[in-house]
Amino acid sequence: MKIRVGILGATGYTGLELIKLLLRHPQAEVAVVTSRRDDEPPLAETHPELTGRLDLPLLNLSPEEVCRRCDCIFACLPHGAAAESVATCLNADRPVIDFSADFRLKDAAVYAHWYGLEHAAPQHLPGAVYGLCELYKPQLTTARLVANPGCYPTAAILPLAPLLRAELIERDGIIIDAKSGVSGAGRTPKLVTHFPECNESISAYNVGKHRHTPEIEQELSAAAGEPVRVVFAPHLVPMDRGILATIYARPTRPLTKQDVLAAMREGYQGCPFIRVVDHLPATRHVAHTNFCDMTAEVVGETLVMFAAIDNLIKGASGAAVQNFNIMFGMEETTALL
Amino acid sequence: MKIRVGILGATGYTGLELIKLLLRHPQAEVAVVTSRRDDEPPLAETHPELTGRLDLPLLNLSPEEVCRRCDCIFACLPHGAAAESVATCLNADRPVIDFSADFRLKDAAVYAHWYGLEHAAPQHLPGAVYGLCELYKPQLTTARLVANPGCYPTAAILPLAPLLRAELIERDGIIIDAKSGVSGAGRTPKLVTHFPECNESISAYNVGKHRHTPEIEQELSAAAGEPVRVVFAPHLVPMDRGILATIYARPTRPLTKQDVLAAMREGYQGCPFIRVVDHLPATRHVAHTNFCDMTAEVVGETLVMFAAIDNLIKGASGAAVQNFNIMFGMEETTALL
Amino acid sequence: MKIRVGILGATGYTGLELIKLLLRHPQAEVAVVTSRRDDEPPLAETHPELTGRLDLPLLNLSPEEVCRRCDCIFACLPHGAAAESVATCLNADRPVIDFSADFRLKDAAVYAHWYGLEHAAPQHLPGAVYGLCELYKPQLTTARLVANPGCYPTAAILPLAPLLRAELIERDGIIIDAKSGVSGAGRTPKLVTHFPECNESISAYNVGKHRHTPEIEQELSAAAGEPVRVVFAPHLVPMDRGILATIYARPTRPLTKQDVLAAMREGYQGCPFIRVVDHLPATRHVAHTNFCDMTAEVVGETLVMFAAIDNLIKGASGAAVQNFNIMFGMEETTALL
Amino acid sequence: MKIRVGILGATGYTGLELIKLLLRHPQAEVAVVTSRRDDEPPLAETHPELTGRLDLPLLNLSPEEVCRRCDCIFACLPHGAAAESVATCLNADRPVIDFSADFRLKDAAVYAHWYGLEHAAPQHLPGAVYGLCELYKPQLTTARLVANPGCYPTAAILPLAPLLRAELIERDGIIIDAKSGVSGAGRTPKLVTHFPECNESISAYNVGKHRHTPEIEQELSAAAGEPVRVVFAPHLVPMDRGILATIYARPTRPLTKQDVLAAMREGYQGCPFIRVVDHLPATRHVAHTNFCDMTAEVVGETLVMFAAIDNLIKGASGAAVQNFNIMFGMEETTALL
Repeated sequence: MKIRVGILGATGYTGLELIKLLLRHPQAEVAVVTSRRDDEPPLAETHPELTGRLDLPLLNLSPEEVCRRCDCIFACLPHGAAAESVATCLNADRPVIDFSADFRLKDAAVYAHWYGLEHAAPQHLPGAVYGLCELYKPQLTTARLVANPGCYPTAAILPLAPLLRAELIERDGIIIDAKSGVSGAGRTPKLVTHFPECNESISAYNVGKHRHTPEIEQELSAAAGEPVRVVFAPHLVPMDRGILATIYARPTRPLTKQDVLAAMREGYQGCPFIRVVDHLPATRHVAHTNFCDMTAEVVGETLVMFAAIDNLIKGASGAAVQNFNIMFGMEETTALL
Repeated sequence: MKIRVGILGATGYTGLELIKLLLRHPQAEVAVVTSRRDDEPPLAETHPELTGRLDLPLLNLSPEEVCRRCDCIFACLPHGAAAESVATCLNADRPVIDFSADFRLKDAAVYAHWYGLEHAAPQHLPGAVYGLCELYKPQLTTARLVANPGCYPTAAILPLAPLLRAELIERDGIIIDAKSGVSGAGRTPKLVTHFPECNESISAYNVGKHRHTPEIEQELSAAAGEPVRVVFAPHLVPMDRGILATIYARPTRPLTKQDVLAAMREGYQGCPFIRVVDHLPATRHVAHTNFCDMTAEVVGETLVMFAAIDNLIKGASGAAVQNFNIMFGMEETTALL
Repeated sequence: MKIRVGILGATGYTGLELIKLLLRHPQAEVAVVTSRRDDEPPLAETHPELTGRLDLPLLNLSPEEVCRRCDCIFACLPHGAAAESVATCLNADRPVIDFSADFRLKDAAVYAHWYGLEHAAPQHLPGAVYGLCELYKPQLTTARLVANPGCYPTAAILPLAPLLRAELIERDGIIIDAKSGVSGAGRTPKLVTHFPECNESISAYNVGKHRHTPEIEQELSAAAGEPVRVVFAPHLVPMDRGILATIYARPTRPLTKQDVLAAMREGYQGCPFIRVVDHLPATRHVAHTNFCDMTAEVVGETLVMFAAIDNLIKGASGAAVQNFNIMFGMEETTALL
Repeated sequence: MKIRVGILGATGYTGLELIKLLLRHPQAEVAVVTSRRDDEPPLAETHPELTGRLDLPLLNLSPEEVCRRCDCIFACLPHGAAAESVATCLNADRPVIDFSADFRLKDAAVYAHWYGLEHAAPQHLPGAVYGLCELYKPQLTTARLVANPGCYPTAAILPLAPLLRAELIERDGIIIDAKSGVSGAGRTPKLVTHFPECNESISAYNVGKHRHTPEIEQELSAAAGEPVRVVFAPHLVPMDRGILATIYARPTRPLTKQDVLAAMREGYQGCPFIRVVDHLPATRHVAHTNFCDMTAEVVGETLVMFAAIDNLIKGASGAAVQNFNIMFGMEETTALL
């Protein structure tokens, strides 16, 4: 018996990548896909990639109805819209993996501040597990609600967490200069992601104001055991996929590159998708995979870390499947290698 | 005294390229730029490229008002919207270079068929000159209304016209397989031009239905002296700029490559922007220029022609400036080399 | 017991894609990978994508030695270099899937003409099976030497073969305007594939002279039962992957689009990787998959066909794995969905 | 009488851009172009962009011979090769604008350390003027040897120099995270700039080791009046052109964004190519121009600066023409707007 999966909001890029991964999953069956519009064509018209592979309608179903037909829910809804639907699914006793930001921040006030919204289901915040598998695997095995991490936070937290935990770097002065492909901006056309605007160009955006900032700071603070503030500067790169985070920090004591790589390797023992490498990683090396490649260089008195992921896989849908695997007691790498 | 230029509809890519060219023009002054919206920021906010170079507001002015302030009008409005504004300017005795399709087709019924619109100013069709400078230079010197050619028609007509005129190729069976950069689709964001949709992909669109088809057929028929029908298959290529037209035709008699190049060269004697070359042209060679590079190859019994242009320059704004130069008796290449 | 696979020449893009596919194959084990150079670093340094996934050295082994260690050979060597190695493997009684052009052309004289080389193992030409699974599946089940098709031929032959076989299109006057991503040119740096040369540009190359021409003509002639000659015009598109073939032909009798799609569907019943679609396919829809999407449009008296593939998967490594599956009696889709 | 210009080493991208600019220059004539190879085709075969625009052979002439035919020399040779040729031209009493790194570093020992070469003409180092026009305009008016700045240094120094001079930022802890298009790597094909390797990917390279580091530090030290060390992390971005430098520094006292912009504006009064803007600049805004767009944001206790240039124009050939204009007493903007 396969696990029947329902996907709330399957018209975007994370929905498409999730479906493609689940089609390879021997224990999962994509049973229901929804849209919040009534007039959607069949799924394979929205995503021609799926022609002949998954013949499902895109229905505007209530979360209750989806829960009746499914054993597990992946919610690919925008923040704000997600909270209520997720709560409904939890009430129907279905485990949920939520792609939105709605359950990532532990503090509803921080959420309200950054997202400009009162949280619609704060009662579920305490039970939500932040779905960065490499940090929260024990909690994920019993989780009912997983807050799937943001793409930038995944690339930023993974290299920093073990170094902060080991007190190898200072908690202040951390700078995260992140570069993302355009699919990270979603599938809704906007001027800034119109091909002739963003092709052949690079620029920063939302510097110091990006909503992934509090998520990064929350998790780095947890790793450090004390509050951590960062400078987070995201950039838009003319490519579909991939995030490269270049991270600058001050060591607490003189460190060599090999010291740092050793700390990374120790922090991620038994983590099948973390590759600590000697070379400077390119996003190409991890494109269409669930891997995170990371390394470090020491330049004068500054430690420079690099982490590369595919924003749609390790930064979204791959991590979600990894969480799904852990929650259901399956091999962590199923459908991901 | 410079010629005061008014640009109707300056928020798009052709408007921007036109302004950049005119800023180099010693006899022109961009005096007025308009938008059809009331709430536009200054021009240099819409086009940050123009910061410090042209400090003008984007005003929602009537064509009458623009005519009061200007000596010559460039209309960069969508088809349908253009016809009436152009007529107003002509009534105000201002010469107009119209970027839209509204005055390209001689036959209002053909226009109505392809554009699904009754023509708003058919009285001006007879006087309009099709602004392909290489074919209509004599008429352009006295024109009051120039219908600036479409980008695809420019690339398709230029290599074919001299060969049809010289009766070197058959009038039937002409196939135009054209490849365009994305800026040809304009500046309004749509799903099909959303970066993650069109990057790393090529596809055909509107095959046999593209509105540039009747324009191509009209001008090829004029060159041939008899009706010409073509198969026109446009493709979207993941690049900003450039059109490459690959054109297949049957020779009327055995021809060598050099025969064809000689006919092209003879057809374009004294045309400063036509470059008949021996190699296969790349759009890169003409990017950001007003050149059209063309060549031909004979493959078995088929003649294959190639023409490369920059869709925004030779395919739009550069051609417009070339027309402007000719209309005002200036050196044809002014601001274009 | 898994089938031990040896890959001759694993440093290029087809080698990399082949390895990635085989890592997902439950019945295959990549046992040996070779290079023709002595000083290669380990495989995962040449292909950082494989870090932590396949820990093998790149050895300069003789084909004999590879045959001793393996049950099946994939030869990813250049044409000319392949023939002799393949012959050695066959003599060692190992089945071979050859990626090169060396065994695709049935006639050694045609090979000599187009490749400028005397064939090094013409005795194996009669036994070689052209590995286009959709056309030669019965022969492939017992093949010992499979000539894996070229990327362009795959995209050109697949839509045309059923229509020629059904005599729906004329055998003369077929035009194939093909557009390929840059990975089709291989991994050796050249000026023409240097990023600043081919990015933001499109151009044709080798028109009428490309070595895939005789391969296309051989297979179309086989389908038609009489000699077929084509005009083949390949173009280089600024993207990594994908081929779109736009094909023009004259119908033998009046046809509708649905007539043509019906003939395509009938021709490919039971073929899991052929998707006959109503829309115009984009290479994006088949990227990183083994699918071939095809459709047709009727424009006046011309039939226009479109086929999209991933040049490295369906056009090379995916087809090779599909052939491998068929040869070894496994499910045709194994490791390919 | 025009100034006859000789270009040593005209086969690369900076040579091509230089020629295109000089073709617009009313007081310059490109008289001689050289290559260090004997078998070059004519210039317009190497650069098809120049077809019909400049009909010159590419000759392997000695610098002496070039000096006999020209009034001013632009040397576009690699470092190491440039020093001797430049010295020869100076001895022949010709002013030289050198694109290489050979005369940028004041200290021959620093040069030897970073470039692994003994300097071939150290006697000319004291007289060389660092050609960053915005900083050295007075010296440039009388210079005989201009060391044209590197592309990264231009983008890094311009925003920092006025702030260091005004003591608004600390001299230590400056981090320069720079992102460059691929043309910055030159025209010689290498694996790292092979299209399928660098397209759809971003990565850092030469972090802490890039040869532009000492050049940046030399000029920032000059601005600060005391030694400055930086962390310089260059990245390769999948686009042709453009550099974006994102620079992190600590203010010496609390600053607002407007304080910083005011200091930048004051530092560059009368500089026609510096645009201090409020928005975050994109490289697209300055592509194909000689502008440098810069701005700043304050994030917590960190000042983040942004500067965007076209690496081939303001970062190379445009700056060279600007220097040429200043050296010859012409309008600084000639041929550059």
